[in-house]
Amino acid sequence: MTPTRPAEVTDPEGQGHMDPLHLCMPGDTRKQAARRLAIARGHLDSIRRALQDPDVYCLDILQQLKAVQGALNGVANVVLRGHLQAHVTTAAARGDAADLVDELMDVLTAR
Amino acid sequence: MTPTRPAEVTDPEGQGHMDPLHLCMPGDTRKQAARRLAIARGHLDSIRRALQDPDVYCLDILQQLKAVQGALNGVANVVLRGHLQAHVTTAAARGDAADLVDELMDVLTAR
Amino acid sequence: MTPTRPAEVTDPEGQGHMDPLHLCMPGDTRKQAARRLAIARGHLDSIRRALQDPDVYCLDILQQLKAVQGALNGVANVVLRGHLQAHVTTAAARGDAADLVDELMDVLTAR
Amino acid sequence: MTPTRPAEVTDPEGQGHMDPLHLCMPGDTRKQAARRLAIARGHLDSIRRALQDPDVYCLDILQQLKAVQGALNGVANVVLRGHLQAHVTTAAARGDAADLVDELMDVLTAR
Repeated sequence: MTPTRPAEVTDPEGQGHMDPLHLCMPGDTRKQAARRLAIARGHLDSIRRALQDPDVYCLDILQQLKAVQGALNGVANVVLRGHLQAHVTTAAARGDAADLVDELMDVLTAR
Repeated sequence: MTPTRPAEVTDPEGQGHMDPLHLCMPGDTRKQAARRLAIARGHLDSIRRALQDPDVYCLDILQQLKAVQGALNGVANVVLRGHLQAHVTTAAARGDAADLVDELMDVLTAR
Repeated sequence: MTPTRPAEVTDPEGQGHMDPLHLCMPGDTRKQAARRLAIARGHLDSIRRALQDPDVYCLDILQQLKAVQGALNGVANVVLRGHLQAHVTTAAARGDAADLVDELMDVLTAR
Repeated sequence: MTPTRPAEVTDPEGQGHMDPLHLCMPGDTRKQAARRLAIARGHLDSIRRALQDPDVYCLDILQQLKAVQGALNGVANVVLRGHLQAHVTTAAARGDAADLVDELMDVLTAR
């Protein structure tokens, strides 16, 4: 697991998380997520092609959509695991536990 | 998945529901689903780009994945509505109600 | 929720689907749902007891909550199947297809 | 937030989590979860009563099942938040981070 970037790393473009506790996704999590997302995208494109066929059957599309959603769940689980491991389990030691729990619960319960 | 569905049967009226032997997705459902799927794909591509940034934050990706999944749910609901309207509500009259219910429940409860 | 549903209409055949003005749940669906719901309730009560133990572990409760939710999904699937079979597949013949699809989609996509 | 029970607390009956890092649910989490679960159970009982009415309509039951499932999600989120705060954010300091992440991911991704 790639460690969290050290506190002195900043984000000069101002696009990221700018506090001294700059948390970014572990490198291997990021690569694994990207790889899985590419597969999900390939599947999504095959659904787009299937939808060009006037003879396509509704349930075939529904089933393929389910498969893509399962793949995206897989991506989300990779990212969540990386986040828990790299950022949440270390939060008390780092001193931002309350913030990390709040923002994680916000994302997990968002609709 | 369609019970019996000979390839040579076509749908000249473009209504997507012709006869007991050929159930295909209603044309407007298909177009609406394709349009929404294209939007979901655009969003998915922006997540792929975000994952190329070593500074990306886990929860930003999780949140964007949720948004894409919401969009895919929207596509699935469009298709499900079209299927109910064009194929399921007419199934008793057509004589394949049991088959249509079975295959729909299979897809809805699949994991 | 039923479009028009006078209380005096009864269901002497016990089939749970009588006429366009009175849609009620098929009797066997109702009994099967009640049976499964009783099981889910038993499981829920065992979680309530577990929560009285100061030594209970968070994840044991989360896991049991998942099991109850799975059981409730099972109940919902029984009811949905009965509804599709008794009411939705016959809707075009009965003449209330648009209403039934609207109300079903409302419930399925509600949050 | 009630702190995690100290390491010297053990479980003589052998029914719980027995290692020296005995983790149990924070007291206020437990009470809040129990309170919400009691409400969910009341709602579930009203569905049981509704299912005794031969005139009950399928979608009314489906809608009420959704409400109970929403309530159970609420209970699960209370427990998850308590677990993250009391146990996961402190895991690196305590030395069991890998185990806690594994078991949490197992529960969150279980079906």
